[in-house]
Amino acid sequence: MRTTTGTALLTDRYELTMLQAALASGAAHRRVVFEVFARRLPGGRRYGVVAGTGRFLDALEAFRFEERDIEFLCSSGIVDEPTGEFLAGYRFSGDVYGYSEGEAFFPGSPIMVVEGTFAEAVLLETVALSILNHDCAIAAAASRMAQAAGDRPLIEMGSRRTHEHAAVAAARAAYLCGFASTSNLMAGRLYGVPTAGTAAHAFTLLHDSEEDAFRAQLDSLGLGTTLLVDTYDVAKAVRTAVELAGPDLGAVRIDSGDLAVVAVEVRRLLDELGANRTRIVVTSDLDEFAIAALAAAPVDAYGVGTALSTGSGHPTASLVYKLVAREDHAGRLQPVAKASVGKPSIGGRKWAYRRTVDGTATAEIVTREPVETDDRPLLAELVRDGEIVGREPLTAARDRHRATLSELPLEACSLSPGDPAVPTIFK
Amino acid sequence: MRTTTGTALLTDRYELTMLQAALASGAAHRRVVFEVFARRLPGGRRYGVVAGTGRFLDALEAFRFEERDIEFLCSSGIVDEPTGEFLAGYRFSGDVYGYSEGEAFFPGSPIMVVEGTFAEAVLLETVALSILNHDCAIAAAASRMAQAAGDRPLIEMGSRRTHEHAAVAAARAAYLCGFASTSNLMAGRLYGVPTAGTAAHAFTLLHDSEEDAFRAQLDSLGLGTTLLVDTYDVAKAVRTAVELAGPDLGAVRIDSGDLAVVAVEVRRLLDELGANRTRIVVTSDLDEFAIAALAAAPVDAYGVGTALSTGSGHPTASLVYKLVAREDHAGRLQPVAKASVGKPSIGGRKWAYRRTVDGTATAEIVTREPVETDDRPLLAELVRDGEIVGREPLTAARDRHRATLSELPLEACSLSPGDPAVPTIFK
Repeated sequence: MRTTTGTALLTDRYELTMLQAALASGAAHRRVVFEVFARRLPGGRRYGVVAGTGRFLDALEAFRFEERDIEFLCSSGIVDEPTGEFLAGYRFSGDVYGYSEGEAFFPGSPIMVVEGTFAEAVLLETVALSILNHDCAIAAAASRMAQAAGDRPLIEMGSRRTHEHAAVAAARAAYLCGFASTSNLMAGRLYGVPTAGTAAHAFTLLHDSEEDAFRAQLDSLGLGTTLLVDTYDVAKAVRTAVELAGPDLGAVRIDSGDLAVVAVEVRRLLDELGANRTRIVVTSDLDEFAIAALAAAPVDAYGVGTALSTGSGHPTASLVYKLVAREDHAGRLQPVAKASVGKPSIGGRKWAYRRTVDGTATAEIVTREPVETDDRPLLAELVRDGEIVGREPLTAARDRHRATLSELPLEACSLSPGDPAVPTIFK
Repeated sequence: MRTTTGTALLTDRYELTMLQAALASGAAHRRVVFEVFARRLPGGRRYGVVAGTGRFLDALEAFRFEERDIEFLCSSGIVDEPTGEFLAGYRFSGDVYGYSEGEAFFPGSPIMVVEGTFAEAVLLETVALSILNHDCAIAAAASRMAQAAGDRPLIEMGSRRTHEHAAVAAARAAYLCGFASTSNLMAGRLYGVPTAGTAAHAFTLLHDSEEDAFRAQLDSLGLGTTLLVDTYDVAKAVRTAVELAGPDLGAVRIDSGDLAVVAVEVRRLLDELGANRTRIVVTSDLDEFAIAALAAAPVDAYGVGTALSTGSGHPTASLVYKLVAREDHAGRLQPVAKASVGKPSIGGRKWAYRRTVDGTATAEIVTREPVETDDRPLLAELVRDGEIVGREPLTAARDRHRATLSELPLEACSLSPGDPAVPTIFK
């Protein structure tokens, strides 16, 4: 459990106006089911990745309307007094099921299912979607990058290109999907993500010479550090670095130019100077395609910034939170669905299973009833009667992601746009 | 002044390792100047918009390393003990100048200038860039949308498509650039942005019939409310709405289909039913281009979601934080600049002015010295000797944005990619 400041106002106004009207009409107390799903995967990606579930549970725990919130809502006429009173006592007492973090998903996968009264479940729409849309978008990009990088480690360093708190969540999602480390210190403290980073060009420019800067860095951080070699002249910097550090220099970083060409030159030079264990880290606007293009280059690690923290062209995951069932007058849950053009929903509470044949996934099976099957059930219990029961360490989610990817068909690794790696079958 | 939790760990690790090495070498105490600028405007946009300055000042005020932060940094070996001690006492005591919020900017505009010792100024890189890159990206998109919408009000409703805290900042930036309101309640409470929102499809689906749902909403929220009419059959819903509410119904919302076509039909029907003052609000994946395409349609207001909160294709503003000057041994500030291929910087502390001729901006003038000129100076004092002096109400920034836009040449309104609306001249 993690201290979080109140999250209840991270909510769209229409949820509260719906609540007010439904409290007045009495419908607010009907039991309902909301479902989180994506109608499509952005950009022709082959699979989505569930991320953010753990953060959603933290947000749910902190979802309380504080006095100043109620005061704001009532005094500005957003809700009436009875609604304000309801909000003051608000605690989610329903159930939440969800795909576990790290799991793959496909169009129509019911990645989260929220059951409760309308009043309590409708209020969670915004915070659930904000968290899942962001984190799943980052995770999808991170997973593709990790596949492209193969065994070479990836360092997440996109904090400076995204909102300061989104950066922390992005670092978490990247680690979940196989990144080795992050530059973001808050992600280190909050989520235990390993952190990395040594120096920027400013450090070299601060000193009277590149040599002074390298010496200062080696003296303080040790020979294992990574020296940034492209502030002035790369070849000269590499020579200076090895002269000062000797063959045990940890790594050099290249942050500009044609990375494939420069890496070859730097490797040759390092080897010539006897520093054949010194690693080469490359950074500079890398995305999954640039990483893949460097597969044959003598590169030992990649630092990824902008493309990671902006979802590599797709900063949001297209997830929606839709009412799929509600209680009728007889107390039975009835499937419901809107008919809006181009935005259909499939009504009814869902269950989901991953079918595998000889260890390879062949279909996402979505049903209206739980079924006895050899297929792997995908919905785990996250919240029971308002109590959070689905917390797990981030490393468990990281392991799950690796396992789930190894199960997907080979097409899933394709970086080019296409159909989802497995079809979703509604039964 | 606003209560904010500690922001000091919203920082990349390399800033602390640079600090440690520079403390050891003594260079940490050199006076330096860092500059925030963009080498280019993303996507061929004609102008950038400064946003986030006020949030940066809040973050700076809360930039303190708390005991648990220091404990984390030292125990995990990220910094040594002397550095930990320095951090425990860290207070920024330097000066910050910046373009005021709402002001336009261009490639090379020095939108923020941070002066202090290297030790104190280097630590602000990540939090400054995170805030400015995010908020300026949203502002650039919002400003184009507002231009496209003309006099019709825009409602920001993108919270569900971006990180839960980024959503709050996005709502703030959108309001700054001319949006009328936001769905985001936290933005209402924290920043005084007017909030809007009535009902989603879930509200209709919750009830036994659309008529029941509309009646419940009208009873609770009054005739001025906005009824969502595309859950089942639009024409039928409009008839039901006017039957129940009469001609004083506030508005109807259309969230699917070909909005231009549907809006014409709905307008005709509303007028036919005598509801000729009832407004039409459209939503559904709008961006600046879709808004412009609806200019001739009978639409009264636009709700914008995903495209706003993801920067309409450009979720980050390409701003960098670069060392441009540092003290030499004689105590004089010397311009410095790296030579990295494709990423050049221009050394030296800068001043900036907007040149206008007959009320129309013709150039962004960037100089190395303050100059006597009729051109409008763009750098305002934000922080003096560590004290925040540049706070202003968000409405002042909103007014400034309107004024600055009215000054730009007509080409600035073009939604198609092209050159910046005015050239940047370095003197």
